[in-house]
Amino acid sequence: MSHKPLHELSVDEFVDGITGGSRHLLSRAITLVESSRPDHEAKAHTILDRCLAAGRRATRIGITGSPGAGKSTFIESFGLELLRHGLRVAVLAIDPSSTRSGGSILGDKARMEQLSTRPEVFIRPTASSGYLGGTSPRTHETILLCEAAGYDVIIVETVGVGQSEIVVNSMVDFILLLMLPGSGDELQGIKRGIMEIADAVAITKADGERTGIAQVSKSDFEAALRLLPEKHPGWKRKVLLTSSLDGTGIAEVWQNVSKFMAEMQANGQLDSTRQEQLRLLLYTIVEDRLKREFFGNPRVAAERELVERHVLSSTISPFSGAMTLLGAFRQEK
Amino acid sequence: MSHKPLHELSVDEFVDGITGGSRHLLSRAITLVESSRPDHEAKAHTILDRCLAAGRRATRIGITGSPGAGKSTFIESFGLELLRHGLRVAVLAIDPSSTRSGGSILGDKARMEQLSTRPEVFIRPTASSGYLGGTSPRTHETILLCEAAGYDVIIVETVGVGQSEIVVNSMVDFILLLMLPGSGDELQGIKRGIMEIADAVAITKADGERTGIAQVSKSDFEAALRLLPEKHPGWKRKVLLTSSLDGTGIAEVWQNVSKFMAEMQANGQLDSTRQEQLRLLLYTIVEDRLKREFFGNPRVAAERELVERHVLSSTISPFSGAMTLLGAFRQEK
Repeated sequence: MSHKPLHELSVDEFVDGITGGSRHLLSRAITLVESSRPDHEAKAHTILDRCLAAGRRATRIGITGSPGAGKSTFIESFGLELLRHGLRVAVLAIDPSSTRSGGSILGDKARMEQLSTRPEVFIRPTASSGYLGGTSPRTHETILLCEAAGYDVIIVETVGVGQSEIVVNSMVDFILLLMLPGSGDELQGIKRGIMEIADAVAITKADGERTGIAQVSKSDFEAALRLLPEKHPGWKRKVLLTSSLDGTGIAEVWQNVSKFMAEMQANGQLDSTRQEQLRLLLYTIVEDRLKREFFGNPRVAAERELVERHVLSSTISPFSGAMTLLGAFRQEK
Repeated sequence: MSHKPLHELSVDEFVDGITGGSRHLLSRAITLVESSRPDHEAKAHTILDRCLAAGRRATRIGITGSPGAGKSTFIESFGLELLRHGLRVAVLAIDPSSTRSGGSILGDKARMEQLSTRPEVFIRPTASSGYLGGTSPRTHETILLCEAAGYDVIIVETVGVGQSEIVVNSMVDFILLLMLPGSGDELQGIKRGIMEIADAVAITKADGERTGIAQVSKSDFEAALRLLPEKHPGWKRKVLLTSSLDGTGIAEVWQNVSKFMAEMQANGQLDSTRQEQLRLLLYTIVEDRLKREFFGNPRVAAERELVERHVLSSTISPFSGAMTLLGAFRQEK
C-alpha cells in the first residue's frame, strides 16, 4: 500500500538508512551524487550535509600500482585482515578511462571473491568520466558518504598510470604503492610522481622462488625512497614484502597504516591535511559548477556559434571571443 | 621632445612595429600578453586582434626531450639550418616550473650562442607560472604574435617531463621528440604519452663512437612507434639520426617537417587542427577568466572566510559551501 517507487525515498529515509549501515541506501545515495541531474544532485547534497553531522571519520587508504601488480588480490587479502580486526571496509575502484557499466561492477566483486560476500564490506566502482585526469569531485563525496555510513577503512583503488593518483592523494590519508618483485627496471618506468606521493611501498607476490628477487627490489625501492623529499614530515616510508598467497606482510601493512594514522593524529598533520582536502574539494566544485552554468547559459549558447566562427577564421582573437561570451554570460535578462 | 615613457606606445605603434618586424615591439607585446594587469591584457588583445588581420601563418614545431637530450645544441644547429633556407625563426622556451627571471632569459640566449646573434631570430622564454600543468593560454597567444611578426618557423621548446608537451601539442603543428642514443632503457622511462604525440623522433649526438648504438636506438624507436596508434592519418613517423657536432641529419629533420606540412596542408588536416586549437584556446581563456572573476568578486570575497570555516569544520558539505559562494557570485548588487 505504501509501496514507493525507487526514486521517491525522502532525505530522512536516506540519512537514517546510510548512518544506520544500509549498503543499499548508501549505494543509491552514491548514484545520486554521481548523477548530473540537478534535482538528484541537490538531493544528494542535502543528504550529504545531514550525514556530515554524524562526524564519523574513517582511515582512507589509496592503493595504486601498475596493471598486473596484483591490486585485486592484495586488496582481497588486506581486506580480510581488516575484517579480522573487526573493522568495516569500503572499497572504491576508480576507473579513469570510462564510466563503468553494470557488468564491470560485477567485475569488481568477482575480482574480490571472498571480500564481496561479507556484510561488513562495501565494494563500488566510482566513475570519473567527464573529468580530465579523473578529477571528479564525486569520488571525494562518495568517500564522505562511506564515512557517514560508518566504514572504518575506505580503500580507494586506482591504476597507477595516469593523473588519478595525484587526485586520489587529495582525498585519502595514506597512499600505498604496490610493486612487483624484480621491477628494478620499473623504477625507471614508474612515474616519479607516484613514488613521491607514496607513504609506503608493498612488494606483492613476494613468495616462493620470487622471495630472493623481492628482497633485492626491497633494497632498490628503499634506496629510491631515500632520495625523495619527505611527504609527511617525520614519517619514514617503508618498503614491505607481501604475499597474498601465504599471507606474508599483510598484517604488517595494516600495522604500518595504523602507526601512520596515530602519528599524524598526534602531530596534527591529519587534521590539517583533511582541512586542506576539503578546501580543495570546495573549489573544485565551484569551478565545475561555474563552467556548467556558463555553458548552460542560454545567452552564451545563442552567441557561441558566431563567436566560434569568427575565432576559427581568425577574424577576431580568441581573447576577444572569450570576452564576448563572458559579456553574454554576465548580462542580465 | 616627443620622448614617450615605455608604457605609452599606442596600439597602432605596436601593430605597425610587430608586423613590420620589430623584435623589440614584439617582445614588449608579449610582456603585455603575459601581464595579469587588466589594462595590459586588454591592450595586448586589441593588438592581437589587429595583428591577426595580417593573416600570416608560420610552421610551428614543438621540440621536447628529457633534460640532457641536447635540446639547446639541437635547436642551435636546426635554427642555423633554417636560416640557410632564408627563413626567420622564433624560439619560445617553456619553463613549466617557474616564471623565468631576466637572468634566465640571458641563459636562453647563451645556450644558443650563434642563433641569438642573428637578426632573423627571436628567442624568448615564455612563462607558464600559475597554470597547473603549464596550460597557459599566453604561450599560444605568444605564438600568434610571432606569426603576425612574420616569423616563418616558430620553435616551442619544452622539457619532456610533465604535462607541458600535451599542452604544447595543442598549439603547434609538429612535435619532434629528441632522444639520446643508447636510451633503449629510456623507452621504459619515457612517458608513453610523449611518444604518442611525437610526429618524428630525432636521436641526438649520433656521432663518433656513438654511431653504432644510435643505429640500435633507431631500430628500437621505430619498433616502438609502429606499436602506437597513428597520430595524423597517413603520416608515417620517422626516426632520424642527428648530430649537432658534424651536422648529420639536421637538414633531414627540416625536410621531414616540410614534407609533413605539405601533406597536412594538402589533405586539410592542418586547417582542421589549427581550428581545433583555436577553439581550445577560446575556452581555456573563458575558464581562466571565469575563475578570476569569481575569486575577484567582492561578494564572494566577503563570504569566503565563513564558508570555508563551515566546510573545514564539516558543519556544511563542500557542495553546500560551493552553492553559497556561487549564489553570492550570481547575485546582483
